Amino acid sequence: MQIKVLKDIMAANTENAGANQARLDASGILGINIMASPGAGKTTFILATIDSLGQDVRVGVIEGDIASQIDSEKVAQKGAPVVQINTGGGCHLDAGQVAAGLDNLPLDQIDVLFIENVGNLVCPSEFKLGEHLRIVLLSVPEGDDKPFKYPGMFASADVVIVTKIDIMPYFDFDLERFKRAVEGLKHGVQIFPLSARTGEGFTDWTDFLRSQLRLREAQM
Amino acid sequence: MQIKVLKDIMAANTENAGANQARLDASGILGINIMASPGAGKTTFILATIDSLGQDVRVGVIEGDIASQIDSEKVAQKGAPVVQINTGGGCHLDAGQVAAGLDNLPLDQIDVLFIENVGNLVCPSEFKLGEHLRIVLLSVPEGDDKPFKYPGMFASADVVIVTKIDIMPYFDFDLERFKRAVEGLKHGVQIFPLSARTGEGFTDWTDFLRSQLRLREAQM
Repeated sequence: MQIKVLKDIMAANTENAGANQARLDASGILGINIMASPGAGKTTFILATIDSLGQDVRVGVIEGDIASQIDSEKVAQKGAPVVQINTGGGCHLDAGQVAAGLDNLPLDQIDVLFIENVGNLVCPSEFKLGEHLRIVLLSVPEGDDKPFKYPGMFASADVVIVTKIDIMPYFDFDLERFKRAVEGLKHGVQIFPLSARTGEGFTDWTDFLRSQLRLREAQM
Repeated sequence: MQIKVLKDIMAANTENAGANQARLDASGILGINIMASPGAGKTTFILATIDSLGQDVRVGVIEGDIASQIDSEKVAQKGAPVVQINTGGGCHLDAGQVAAGLDNLPLDQIDVLFIENVGNLVCPSEFKLGEHLRIVLLSVPEGDDKPFKYPGMFASADVVIVTKIDIMPYFDFDLERFKRAVEGLKHGVQIFPLSARTGEGFTDWTDFLRSQLRLREAQM
């Protein structure tokens, strides 16, 4: 009986996720689900990407947190449209919550929608939100062994971002070992090491993001 | 119906947690549930505490991870009895899993049992394991705003440890702001800032731990 309930929840979520994706497609928006541990630098990554992209790519954000609106206030300061979702106690966003977020965003004024999931390397990977791209962030201080410990999360990623590489000298983080571990879980994942503080690596990342936007436009 | 299932699960867990605590009490063991984000430094904290305590306090460890036995291998190298629990995909340990862990540890040779929960700032706080003390670790790179975002976790803590303080100069981490935020969630929580790399702060922490052990002995 417990499994049946779980299946019902997952089926409803998958259905809602499909509807979200159709809405994003209708508005020509690239939806990106951003997942990571607490403090990996998800919000900072989004803010720095907005700066790095400049005016020609219009970014919108859905901020997911258990509580508080600290992150959405930071995004609003950048002038980007943003909605905050507080899950109460939930350890991940679900597609129904994201649908409510879409209701409250000016979809005709957005090219890329970042959906910042609740800080968690477990639960969010199970729930599709309607995104086109799944990004997992890992910060250098968390350590290069995390793909071994959270294989479900890393195996669900289309893109992996290593954040805070400016402090790599202070940590025993082996980037090659990390890349091999990720590659072992899912072949061909794009990995971008970068630092929001120094700006290192952001051009490679935004070049990739622009290429994804062009690809999408060409397919429509 | 969903709520009913959830209640059943929680009731069963609470019952198992009570049984675990009775077993720990019977063996004179202080049980400590350690919770934090992935990469906050839980294992390193346990290893450094073992070193700092020296020979007169005997430590045992239950390692909880979704996958891998990386952490338990590190503990075993210290010569401490250790059991690895892999949750498969579960985002927290439950009391039933810990009971199985207790079955596989030499309880008569342990004074302090560290139960390292799955890396996660959400789910673990909901599930009692039979511990006497709940410790939440937060590492400096995660940022001082985390109590606002994960209030449930920090409100569940008896002790909060701030790890990696040796790299504080490289981050905008305001320790006083963090302490006020924790204090706002739960009055009187003990907070220990420390660094496993430099050893700073460990004497205060192990002094506190020894005082807890003496307190327990006196009560028996």
